[in-house]
Amino acid sequence: MTPHAADLDAWLDETREERLADYLEFLCIPSISALPSHADECRRAAEFLADRMRAAGLEHVEVAETEGNPVVYGDWLHAHDAPTILVYGHYDVQPVDPLDLWVKAPFDPRVEDGRVYARGAADDKSNVHAQVQAARAWLANDGRLPVNLKFVFEGEEESGSEHLDRWLADNRRRLAADLAVVSDTGFFEGNVPAITVGLRGIMYAQVDVSGPAIDLHSGGYGGTVRNPATVLCEIVAGLHDADGRVDVPGFYDDVRPLSERDRAEFARLPFDERAYRESLGVDTLWGEAGYTTLERRGGRPTLEVNGIWGGFQGEGAKTIIPAHAHAKISCRLVRDQDPERIFGLVRDRILALAPAGVRVDVTYIHGGSPSLTPVDHPATKAAARSIREVFGVDPVYIREGGSVPVTASFESILGLPVVLLGFTPPDDHAHAPNESMRLDNLELGTRTMTRYWEALAETLLR
Amino acid sequence: MTPHAADLDAWLDETREERLADYLEFLCIPSISALPSHADECRRAAEFLADRMRAAGLEHVEVAETEGNPVVYGDWLHAHDAPTILVYGHYDVQPVDPLDLWVKAPFDPRVEDGRVYARGAADDKSNVHAQVQAARAWLANDGRLPVNLKFVFEGEEESGSEHLDRWLADNRRRLAADLAVVSDTGFFEGNVPAITVGLRGIMYAQVDVSGPAIDLHSGGYGGTVRNPATVLCEIVAGLHDADGRVDVPGFYDDVRPLSERDRAEFARLPFDERAYRESLGVDTLWGEAGYTTLERRGGRPTLEVNGIWGGFQGEGAKTIIPAHAHAKISCRLVRDQDPERIFGLVRDRILALAPAGVRVDVTYIHGGSPSLTPVDHPATKAAARSIREVFGVDPVYIREGGSVPVTASFESILGLPVVLLGFTPPDDHAHAPNESMRLDNLELGTRTMTRYWEALAETLLR
Repeated sequence: MTPHAADLDAWLDETREERLADYLEFLCIPSISALPSHADECRRAAEFLADRMRAAGLEHVEVAETEGNPVVYGDWLHAHDAPTILVYGHYDVQPVDPLDLWVKAPFDPRVEDGRVYARGAADDKSNVHAQVQAARAWLANDGRLPVNLKFVFEGEEESGSEHLDRWLADNRRRLAADLAVVSDTGFFEGNVPAITVGLRGIMYAQVDVSGPAIDLHSGGYGGTVRNPATVLCEIVAGLHDADGRVDVPGFYDDVRPLSERDRAEFARLPFDERAYRESLGVDTLWGEAGYTTLERRGGRPTLEVNGIWGGFQGEGAKTIIPAHAHAKISCRLVRDQDPERIFGLVRDRILALAPAGVRVDVTYIHGGSPSLTPVDHPATKAAARSIREVFGVDPVYIREGGSVPVTASFESILGLPVVLLGFTPPDDHAHAPNESMRLDNLELGTRTMTRYWEALAETLLR
Repeated sequence: MTPHAADLDAWLDETREERLADYLEFLCIPSISALPSHADECRRAAEFLADRMRAAGLEHVEVAETEGNPVVYGDWLHAHDAPTILVYGHYDVQPVDPLDLWVKAPFDPRVEDGRVYARGAADDKSNVHAQVQAARAWLANDGRLPVNLKFVFEGEEESGSEHLDRWLADNRRRLAADLAVVSDTGFFEGNVPAITVGLRGIMYAQVDVSGPAIDLHSGGYGGTVRNPATVLCEIVAGLHDADGRVDVPGFYDDVRPLSERDRAEFARLPFDERAYRESLGVDTLWGEAGYTTLERRGGRPTLEVNGIWGGFQGEGAKTIIPAHAHAKISCRLVRDQDPERIFGLVRDRILALAPAGVRVDVTYIHGGSPSLTPVDHPATKAAARSIREVFGVDPVYIREGGSVPVTASFESILGLPVVLLGFTPPDDHAHAPNESMRLDNLELGTRTMTRYWEALAETLLR
């Protein structure tokens, strides 16, 4: 450790309590981007973040309008002859239902046993907070940063990043950089430090099955008309074959088979299948035949039902044939699969499965492209060195199942290489009730970022 | 028409407005028996009804306790040497969701174009009101009834009549009679007067599929665990074969094939398939191969999904694998099928369809036996004569798809023959939003009952 790093660490230790309080205040804002009713709360989170960025010493801080939730931008550009790094995170969070399963209200953070429980505690307010505080540490101690930084924090990641691409394209010149650091990922099973080198893409759609004009009495009409809920089930059942493969013609056409090297890399990752199973509370795992769990998660496309509903859901009995039934369906995509093309294939398959007697509509909700970044890029290697310095271990390189569609946008719109570096624990329950963040991950993650700025300055010589 | 009948008709015409106001007041009480939160409202409906029965001149009126909602009892037993008729109806109603599809609030009756729109307007408050008012007409005009009447109005028909059988058994002696008139049915397509001679039974169950302990991120876990919503769909899809038959081993074992005569009777009913289709808003009908629509509805057992739910149902996108998914499933049963035996068969089939990686529970909610009554019973013939006198046409004899489980109870517990006579129109939207009753059906139905009491006195000589 350099003397300089020791100074930054000491400053971080001294300000720990104050930074924790600030992070908890951030978590109190219910910035749920999927709910139009929460647009004001999203804006409040953006203003909060902009305020903290200004306080950290960042410049040109702006709550930039889009047609949806604003993008928060700020930079520090005085590191002459040093590389410029674009940092991405998001201040919006997932919806909170089912609310009754939360131990405490989702926007009333609970600190317990070294963790903070709240919606957004991990995904992604932890990483956003760590990035801003790492910059603050440098500016507070040295009055400078070793690299030029441009922060871009969006507010629609959890609802499809609908307006970000347009904003990126409109601001292409201002966003010029040497590298993008996307900070919306986490560590591997067992809380092993990790650098994500692959992300799946996503295609999210809704299926609506409509039958009779109104709910019908299941006595008077049962057995004489198509039941939309039954039809919906038959459609969903037709989307996988008996081997767990997605049964949609053309679905795998663009998927590159996993190479021997790919499979060897998956096999090298530490993975305790039994512990994984037990942590999920299931008696057996399941997936596409012929692949391991990690391959299924990181290297193969999938199709999942995210929600389904129709007819009577209350206590007791109501004897109706529902007039309509619905499902939310999404696919995770791997490299070379295109979300819109996949939507077309899934829609066609669903329509082919639809019988006469009902109307079936399939609507595209959002999509994001998959991405893969090289393990041997100098910026990836620098991230690995910074992690080793702080955590004392080498990171693993993982291909994650989730999607950060902006990664593909940075590559395609801004032409930037991307490093995916975030610090959330694997058991964070992101998107579920009682989401949590480990406070040591937050602290050591912040510390890692202070090192990483310096490592990038040394690596990416201009 | 006898001079006496003319007096009763005149009295009914004079009191029409007042009786309508009373019926509307009855409809304002939200007596939803499926919701435990509405127990007080059910009791309020029972007290209202008891009050009106006393006002009509009935005796021994009592709001009789059960372990659930009370039974309302009242009688008039001074017709010496005349038969005794047990009259059944129910004052409870179905739930009202989806509430947003109602033109006006379901318990704020709307009178328009000769109809009353409200939950319970048809099923079954119309028939209950008609029965009480028909007795009142006699007692107000003659100070007597031509038969002895025992009214039994229950408050749990829409939630399975759970406590009625016990109450009937406990009151067997008090309920001794010559005939039961069950008034919870209606007219045939085209509003053709009808006497129901067959009713299907019912078996209602809930299916619960549980997977991971919590909702999981569909990116991080998609493709690695069984998705409970997908499994539920696969189970439901496995409950019918390609010919629309219920694919449950043993399901049809006790079903008697329709005889040539049965099929001829179904074929004789007036039925405009195109008008039926159009009234339902579907482009084609569907059902078990080899049967007509009326046979499917009245003469064959079915299995329907009444509701389904699991995971995210909101606007936009939430990327989860739901921890659990649920369905309400019910079967309509025909003569000789036993609800509990059918439950066992359906449960076994569902459990056989359940894969490893999820837990599946199947719970019996309620059941009721099917029934068939003879067309040539003297009480059926007397009902036909009364209908002809009032409506000017012969009734049709129908086997209905719905269930009135109490019919089987009257037969088995009290040993009574049963006539099913009610006056709701076929397009009443019972159980659906904007349920309605035709006011002329209500008036002429009330008039028919005044005739029927007299016809029974002449027919069922003691």
